[in-house]
Amino acid sequence: MSAETGSPATAADRTPRAPAEDRFASDPAFEVHEGGKLVVRPTRGIESREDLALTYTPGVARVSSAIAAEPELARRFTWASRVVAVVSDGTAVLGLGDIGPAAALPVMEGKACLFSEFAGLSSVPVVLSTTDVDRIVETVAAIAPSFGGINLEDISAPRCFEIEDRLRERLDVPVMHDDQHGTAIVVLAALRNAARVTGRTLADLRVVVAGAGAAGIACTRILLGAGVGDICVADSRGVLHPGREDLTPVKRWVAEHTNRSGYAGTMTGALEGADVYLGLSGGSVPEAAIASMAPGCIVFSLANPTPEVDPEMAARYAAVVATGRSDLPNQINNVLAFPGVFRGAIDAGATAITEEMKLAAAEAIAGVVGDDLAPGYVVPSPLDRRVATAVAEAVAATARAQGITR
Amino acid sequence: MSAETGSPATAADRTPRAPAEDRFASDPAFEVHEGGKLVVRPTRGIESREDLALTYTPGVARVSSAIAAEPELARRFTWASRVVAVVSDGTAVLGLGDIGPAAALPVMEGKACLFSEFAGLSSVPVVLSTTDVDRIVETVAAIAPSFGGINLEDISAPRCFEIEDRLRERLDVPVMHDDQHGTAIVVLAALRNAARVTGRTLADLRVVVAGAGAAGIACTRILLGAGVGDICVADSRGVLHPGREDLTPVKRWVAEHTNRSGYAGTMTGALEGADVYLGLSGGSVPEAAIASMAPGCIVFSLANPTPEVDPEMAARYAAVVATGRSDLPNQINNVLAFPGVFRGAIDAGATAITEEMKLAAAEAIAGVVGDDLAPGYVVPSPLDRRVATAVAEAVAATARAQGITR
Repeated sequence: MSAETGSPATAADRTPRAPAEDRFASDPAFEVHEGGKLVVRPTRGIESREDLALTYTPGVARVSSAIAAEPELARRFTWASRVVAVVSDGTAVLGLGDIGPAAALPVMEGKACLFSEFAGLSSVPVVLSTTDVDRIVETVAAIAPSFGGINLEDISAPRCFEIEDRLRERLDVPVMHDDQHGTAIVVLAALRNAARVTGRTLADLRVVVAGAGAAGIACTRILLGAGVGDICVADSRGVLHPGREDLTPVKRWVAEHTNRSGYAGTMTGALEGADVYLGLSGGSVPEAAIASMAPGCIVFSLANPTPEVDPEMAARYAAVVATGRSDLPNQINNVLAFPGVFRGAIDAGATAITEEMKLAAAEAIAGVVGDDLAPGYVVPSPLDRRVATAVAEAVAATARAQGITR
Repeated sequence: MSAETGSPATAADRTPRAPAEDRFASDPAFEVHEGGKLVVRPTRGIESREDLALTYTPGVARVSSAIAAEPELARRFTWASRVVAVVSDGTAVLGLGDIGPAAALPVMEGKACLFSEFAGLSSVPVVLSTTDVDRIVETVAAIAPSFGGINLEDISAPRCFEIEDRLRERLDVPVMHDDQHGTAIVVLAALRNAARVTGRTLADLRVVVAGAGAAGIACTRILLGAGVGDICVADSRGVLHPGREDLTPVKRWVAEHTNRSGYAGTMTGALEGADVYLGLSGGSVPEAAIASMAPGCIVFSLANPTPEVDPEMAARYAAVVATGRSDLPNQINNVLAFPGVFRGAIDAGATAITEEMKLAAAEAIAGVVGDDLAPGYVVPSPLDRRVATAVAEAVAATARAQGITR
């Protein structure tokens, strides 16, 4: 037994630091991850027999009995209603792809850190040893009484759509696949402000969405819901249109609800005269295609770490450029959305996260920018602590207005 | 939105306190449970863009990539190996019975508080919406990559035996049903010292176990493993013997491995001349039965809050009396076992919790009493911080000696 276990009473005990010649020592990311990034703590210490008798037996029996008699008391006397499960099967982790549950865990722990830091919510990473849709749905439904919200994360398309749909239908707590809706909310917030700073309205815009995965589909849906004028969505085979024979059910729905002119060409072809490029696909876009867009256009190129459109090149043609990168202006970062969305839903006791709540979240994020709006400042900094508060208030108010609260 | 959500960045935010006329205000147990008893926190704050870039993207991608390439790095760079799931379906909660997952949650939160306080381990309550054995096994197996150990809790017999057996077979992390083995470890520790203080050895003892549920079966098994001379186990229909036609497979195994004389009578009949009464059944035992036991006998009456044998009455006949109550000497409390058992197993990287590890834990608990041994002090106080350390050291050393560590 190592020396550090000599006092297991200290909750802060961690895995011992590695020796100096450690091959990971040169990268501070590994230092931050040593022993994991999370800890579960009691809200009060146990110093006396009385503490023990209130926190555990026999006192806890009175609380359990009360909840058994009146189930709604669980919301007040347990932590469940204020803890979010961050659930992943590890199939679509960042840009790394299907790396499995163990390798996905640092990302889920990071997400839980952000829930705590930005929304004061506890959250627990739950990574799964299965990628089967039925088993994932059954598993999350089985553990659902432990949690007040389910944040689905890094689950590959098209499985993510079915998993989210089925869990939303089955559970009465907020369920949200963040890669879809977190991204979509922040994109809409940024686009609202980009339109405003370039003197347009959302209804004026013709948008080309490059990428029909989880984020591309969800962005398309929220932009439709927000009243964007026209949208073309492209996957690797070109723009989606109802004449294509190779579409999944989700892509078919998109083809039928977008692309007013029935354009059947390539993504770069669709960019000619377009107001907005929204890149969620990786790969690269030729300069000529960006040059063919409308004057004063808007380029959101979100592949990370390498944007589809070189930001310097984009700036030669576009009035507003946004990326996923933290070292450039206008970073589109999900952390602007998910902490406040779940906090608002939980504060209100919402039984779901609705389209209206997402639209309200986007408006709240855009609103934080306020009068400081500029082409290089269409979204707040991911560290701006005002954002989660504003989002939570807007989301909770919307849930209450919709009457979907407990 | 309530005033307290005005600053969601504060991790300590809790459900607002109830007004003074609150019907729960008179019981401090409810005050302790207000808003739940646990919180998940990051191990470091996120103050700067650099913090964000190391805790989350892009830094986290390097850690995830490293784990994808070398899975054993997950043990070092995630929290999973140091977090225990406390899993319950709410079917056998304390003395309350089948009260369901929501009402069971305060108990699981309490358990997690004790893991943190006594062993410095994070743990997460996982209460289940299913009581089906297959679904429970599938669910726990599906979420297993998230955790370094599985503490099963308050699952009714005989389902608990199959669930634990199947999970132990399927998973390569420590799995322990605490109602069985935590109780058994502490009972053995207390019995070791009770035998010593009354001048006996374990091999000398004839023990009557009243109760053939989860705890009764597990106590019987560990006592057999520790070399106790003879054991009779009784359920509500009398002493288990191979001639009974009404036995479950587990009870049949017990009948075939206990009761040397083939006694086929009642529990109280079996007490005549017995050295030890171990009550795990509830109900009450008549004074005449206790009076018929061997001189200087040992009475462990663990039903809570009302022991099967009145402790004052027991003291008229027995040399050592132990109960489950915190207001009497010799409290048999699982908290003496489970924190150190999991801490030791996790420290050693053990892939299971073996019989030998449980025996070592019992010996370590008994050893803490040391030269202070007295009839009123056969087990340490549940608040004695030396216990978890001693148990963890003994369990880890045994796991290493058995070669079942990573």
